Amino acid sequence: MTDSPHTALSLNNIRNTLIRLEETIIFSVIERSQFCQNLIVYQKDGLGDGLHNQSLLDFMLHECERSHALVRRYTSPDEYPFFDDLPEPFLPDRPDTEHPLHPNTVNINKDLYQIYQQDMVPFICPPGDDDQYGSTAVNDVALLQTLSKRIHYGKFVAESKYQQQPEQFDPLIAAQDRAALMKAITNAEVEANVLRRVLRKAQTYAREFQGTPGDFKVDPQQVHDLYLRWIIPMNKEVQVEYLCQRV
Amino acid sequence: MTDSPHTALSLNNIRNTLIRLEETIIFSVIERSQFCQNLIVYQKDGLGDGLHNQSLLDFMLHECERSHALVRRYTSPDEYPFFDDLPEPFLPDRPDTEHPLHPNTVNINKDLYQIYQQDMVPFICPPGDDDQYGSTAVNDVALLQTLSKRIHYGKFVAESKYQQQPEQFDPLIAAQDRAALMKAITNAEVEANVLRRVLRKAQTYAREFQGTPGDFKVDPQQVHDLYLRWIIPMNKEVQVEYLCQRV
Repeated sequence: MTDSPHTALSLNNIRNTLIRLEETIIFSVIERSQFCQNLIVYQKDGLGDGLHNQSLLDFMLHECERSHALVRRYTSPDEYPFFDDLPEPFLPDRPDTEHPLHPNTVNINKDLYQIYQQDMVPFICPPGDDDQYGSTAVNDVALLQTLSKRIHYGKFVAESKYQQQPEQFDPLIAAQDRAALMKAITNAEVEANVLRRVLRKAQTYAREFQGTPGDFKVDPQQVHDLYLRWIIPMNKEVQVEYLCQRV
Repeated sequence: MTDSPHTALSLNNIRNTLIRLEETIIFSVIERSQFCQNLIVYQKDGLGDGLHNQSLLDFMLHECERSHALVRRYTSPDEYPFFDDLPEPFLPDRPDTEHPLHPNTVNINKDLYQIYQQDMVPFICPPGDDDQYGSTAVNDVALLQTLSKRIHYGKFVAESKYQQQPEQFDPLIAAQDRAALMKAITNAEVEANVLRRVLRKAQTYAREFQGTPGDFKVDPQQVHDLYLRWIIPMNKEVQVEYLCQRV
């Protein structure tokens, strides 16, 4: 496989973006996990009925997406919203926007939103309630948006892989053979490298300076497992779904 | 000086909060500085007249504060807005909210907002324009809010110092003697400790894993200098102004 280093779809450029997003994700996990699970933040009307049957997180994520939609965040090919009732941008489209992807409707943020609240928060945050609901939701929004970007970057990865070997992918796409596509886009060595690197980064960035030497703010193995269990599989799911729409 | 370890105003608790905020600030500086200065983000109508004589950052910070005000962010004694035309919360006040501060109107966010754009961004970000305006403004909002929290935490510091030695402060407050108050709240040893610790943390958290060993994402000395030039002085300014209103 050869890379053309000067295009948005070069695997080198894509990998550099994904590598830099690891820092953003790790910092964001460390920030969220300083607060307890605070599950009331995820309950409809958990903070009273002023939010009209929304959770605090629903409200804050929705408001954030509404304002960002107005300044055209979701016209960018690497940004995908969690809500589908957002306003049109009031800034005009940028004339120079690159659209390197095949037209597609892949967006797995509804799954991500549910998995985040049900599985990821209990996995990375200490149990209980520390009353820091606003900070919790603010950090949730940042972490969710970063996870979504990382996961949907699978579209760029898939498009790049496709362009390098269209003759390998075309019959699998024609047959809508998801299992074979999953096999074709899987590179076990790359995944192992990602996991090793994420673990090493987390061991550095999560280092605790107060308290017992060797303490961590969040267990680096948990950051590793977050990638193993959810981020990498969901990224690959996006790749397969994207390719299935590449007809 | 003795600390009562179980109150919101114990100097120990306050210092632990400030120490933990160092991580949040350092992560946030690293995140912002991955993008160029992108000064167009701070220009009125820099992105066209759709924003009605606001900069992109004006718009995004204002919208963020509007939605956070609705869920009572700014009723918390450690949160201060940059805009003064925010809506009333539609969540009721929490019955258990602690109000450990003397009533006051100290808010130096207008200064912070200006200094941030004029001085801090050019100080921490590479010059030029990389077209990442949305990410730039999103990171600006997060960093500004953290800086504001850290700086206005001076109110808690000042109240705690006052309660330990009211007889030392009362005559200075009565005379509105800002220079003497500044001297009374200054602890050179504590400041030197903060600066040493921030440098050490930045040397760890800003470590670069790609490229040349020993590289940093942002120069740790610059994070140190950010504290030295702006964060510590503005925190102390808040302390003095708070005490001047403590009559």
